[in-house]
Amino acid sequence: MKRHYETLTPEGVRLFLAGYETLAVRLGGKPAQWNVREVSDGNLNLVFLVHGPDGSVCVKQSLPHVRVDPEWRMPLDRTAFEAEWLRRAERFAPGHVPEFLLFDPDMFVLVMECLDDFVTLRQALGEDADATGPSRIIAEFVTRIAFSSSLLAGRLEDVMPDMALFAHNTTLTRITFDLVLSDPFCVHPRNHWLSELDQDVMALQNDPAIARAMIRLQQRFLTCPQALLHGDLHSGSVMVRGEQVRVIDGEFSLYGPIGFDCGLYLANLVLARAAARSDERRTHLAEAMEVFWSGFSTHFLSLWQTCALRGDLLAEGTFAAFPSLLHAEREHYLNGIFQDMTGFAAAEIIRRTIGYAQVADFDHLSDTTEKAARQREALTFAGTLLRNPPLSMTEFSVRLED
Amino acid sequence: MKRHYETLTPEGVRLFLAGYETLAVRLGGKPAQWNVREVSDGNLNLVFLVHGPDGSVCVKQSLPHVRVDPEWRMPLDRTAFEAEWLRRAERFAPGHVPEFLLFDPDMFVLVMECLDDFVTLRQALGEDADATGPSRIIAEFVTRIAFSSSLLAGRLEDVMPDMALFAHNTTLTRITFDLVLSDPFCVHPRNHWLSELDQDVMALQNDPAIARAMIRLQQRFLTCPQALLHGDLHSGSVMVRGEQVRVIDGEFSLYGPIGFDCGLYLANLVLARAAARSDERRTHLAEAMEVFWSGFSTHFLSLWQTCALRGDLLAEGTFAAFPSLLHAEREHYLNGIFQDMTGFAAAEIIRRTIGYAQVADFDHLSDTTEKAARQREALTFAGTLLRNPPLSMTEFSVRLED
Ligand SMILES: Nc1ncnc2c1ncn2[C@@H]1O[C@H](COP(=O)(O)OP(=O)(O)OP(=O)(O)O)[C@@H](O)[C@H]1O
Ligand SMILES: Nc1ncnc2c1ncn2[C@@H]1O[C@H](COP(=O)(O)OP(=O)(O)OP(=O)(O)O)[C@@H](O)[C@H]1O
Ligand SMILES: [Mg+2]
Ligand SMILES: [Mg+2]
Repeated sequence: MKRHYETLTPEGVRLFLAGYETLAVRLGGKPAQWNVREVSDGNLNLVFLVHGPDGSVCVKQSLPHVRVDPEWRMPLDRTAFEAEWLRRAERFAPGHVPEFLLFDPDMFVLVMECLDDFVTLRQALGEDADATGPSRIIAEFVTRIAFSSSLLAGRLEDVMPDMALFAHNTTLTRITFDLVLSDPFCVHPRNHWLSELDQDVMALQNDPAIARAMIRLQQRFLTCPQALLHGDLHSGSVMVRGEQVRVIDGEFSLYGPIGFDCGLYLANLVLARAAARSDERRTHLAEAMEVFWSGFSTHFLSLWQTCALRGDLLAEGTFAAFPSLLHAEREHYLNGIFQDMTGFAAAEIIRRTIGYAQVADFDHLSDTTEKAARQREALTFAGTLLRNPPLSMTEFSVRLED
Repeated sequence: MKRHYETLTPEGVRLFLAGYETLAVRLGGKPAQWNVREVSDGNLNLVFLVHGPDGSVCVKQSLPHVRVDPEWRMPLDRTAFEAEWLRRAERFAPGHVPEFLLFDPDMFVLVMECLDDFVTLRQALGEDADATGPSRIIAEFVTRIAFSSSLLAGRLEDVMPDMALFAHNTTLTRITFDLVLSDPFCVHPRNHWLSELDQDVMALQNDPAIARAMIRLQQRFLTCPQALLHGDLHSGSVMVRGEQVRVIDGEFSLYGPIGFDCGLYLANLVLARAAARSDERRTHLAEAMEVFWSGFSTHFLSLWQTCALRGDLLAEGTFAAFPSLLHAEREHYLNGIFQDMTGFAAAEIIRRTIGYAQVADFDHLSDTTEKAARQREALTFAGTLLRNPPLSMTEFSVRLED
């Protein structure tokens, strides 16, 4: 049945779901018994959680505009990319994402497993929850998708069509390019910050070393399609319940440099640390960063040993006669990811502090001077990452303590 | 009218063209008056030249196999990519390609302007024709398409859909990846060479420095979509008549590193020089190489000054406040192209000497010892390019004389 796009109301959600037998069966009972609750808290889309006598689903629909700014018009196709991403994430990293249930291309509705009683990792971190467990799991998640979707595991006949598919996600790629990698680095109406930070922002925006780093990161972002990225892996895209972790919201997905996903995640730990309520907490969050990178790098190298798949790049194929060279080149590849990671982490820290869509982490600080001091700490650290990139996680951690 | 694919005969060409009024008008007279001549001399496709009382066309059709090896099955879509490439080449570098006339997606037939009395540059070079004029023009041609199709001139909304389109050209990308960047560097049944070169080939294939360079070039080729490439820019893809130059045969087109096209062209000058009949000719061909790179780099930098288009990368946008930095970063970008160029040139030299589809340039040397010595010179030079990459064209030229 061909439908015409219309924005869902809670009643519309009920009707929509009733039209799909498998979903109606999953929920159980009669549609009138289903409880529909809107939980949209992001910037872009509508999200509903629906519970029936037998089960539940989460319904996500794109709007023809930015949810929090109806003047900002936007095409609807972002849920289509999220659906494509989710199906690949399920395949490559099973158990780390909500189950994909359905995508309706006319209504731009994605239906997935409802994560009951999960909260965002950002909220959990704000409430001093464990950060190392989720970081270990996210490290494994990023490794698996990055490796499996790349030419390290796949042949070009399989990977290039996926590169093509996600290259059409231009709307959200533009958002990332502008909001994360461009606007915060020049005078732009979307930027704003506490006046206490004026000097710091000027120092960042007028520094040619920062500009140079960003010019190169912009190129890495758009012309280095190493693997399928989540594209927006901040702590609001991770949901946790106890030790369980799920990644949601892959609408920004694209082929890009693997260090981009790593960098966004790391940046959000840096921001949580800068906003933390105690020194113990600061130490714990710094530890989570190390856990993240060591988990990532260990998994990544070990996938090369254990993964049955053999791709076109850095695989044994042509160069099987040079095992130690291959090993060294894989380490070199990983170093490249590390470099990208610290650069993109810096951009994300800066963007979340002075650009559009700032993080809630600092909201609990009611004293403006204190808040500015904490944000300055994050900004300063980001500045050193760009001016003088650390060569190892050890250097990164030492720098964090300075 | 929907047609079913069938391989064209000369009679089939006549019928096919008669079915398109614009083409029939171009040729003039009655179909029976048209002269149809098959001129296929490449490895892959059928090519016919057709002359009528009023005009002429060139008809190219893909076969369901490699033309020179019917056992090697191949999908038909390569002429579709050539057609897409040709339309962009016409737009970005008008006058440097045969005029695009028609593409029939059912018959996989591309119809273009017939280049009467043109010969391939390879043939012309073998007959001691001027090499500097064509090199200057090819430099301008590569500059224009590379720059205009890239994110240097275009916004991601325009460029990424083209990246997506050409990412589907997996069949011929596979051929390049295997034949140019893989097979010649390991033991492979498609390789062959004069037995005099056994030692040289062993030295290349067993050198970890060469392997390392190739591992990196493989990555550059598949994961660095800077611009739309021709993808097979050897001297058989360039046609000349007097001072006129046209580039044909863009079926290998893909988004990749700009240095790939430069490198292939340069390599074919190196091969021509190694096969040359006199010292004057060697000097002339070395000069053509310098003309090529200096033309390319000058044009490339000047397009940034003059081009009305402003893309997302390395443009004034975000970083307009840093003009000298931007200038330096553009030079840095150009240096990256130079590095890629010398690496890919080396791969092409090696592949055309010991791999599949070797060049005809050495065919005039009937003395095997002499021929082997000339090929050794080319191979040795390629080896130094990979082991110890030159940092400038001056270094490249000095190395060539050694
Ligand atoms: N599968 C799910 N199960 C339960 N709750 C979910 C699920 N998916 C999303 N949510 C809730 O809905 C909220 C918004 O979801 P999401 O982040 O995907 O929306 P968005 O509009 O794309 O946000 P953003 O501005 O981050 O892009 C989440 O913070 C979460 O609370
Ligand atoms: N537009 C044209 N006008 C005149 N002659 C042409 C034209 N295009 C191609 N030819 C002739 O046909 C020959 C084969 O063309 P082309 O190189 O495009 O075919 P191919 O099968 O793709 O070859 P390759 O093996 O190099 O891929 C050329 O060498 C040239 O002599
Ligand atoms: Mg989202
Ligand atoms: Mg061809």
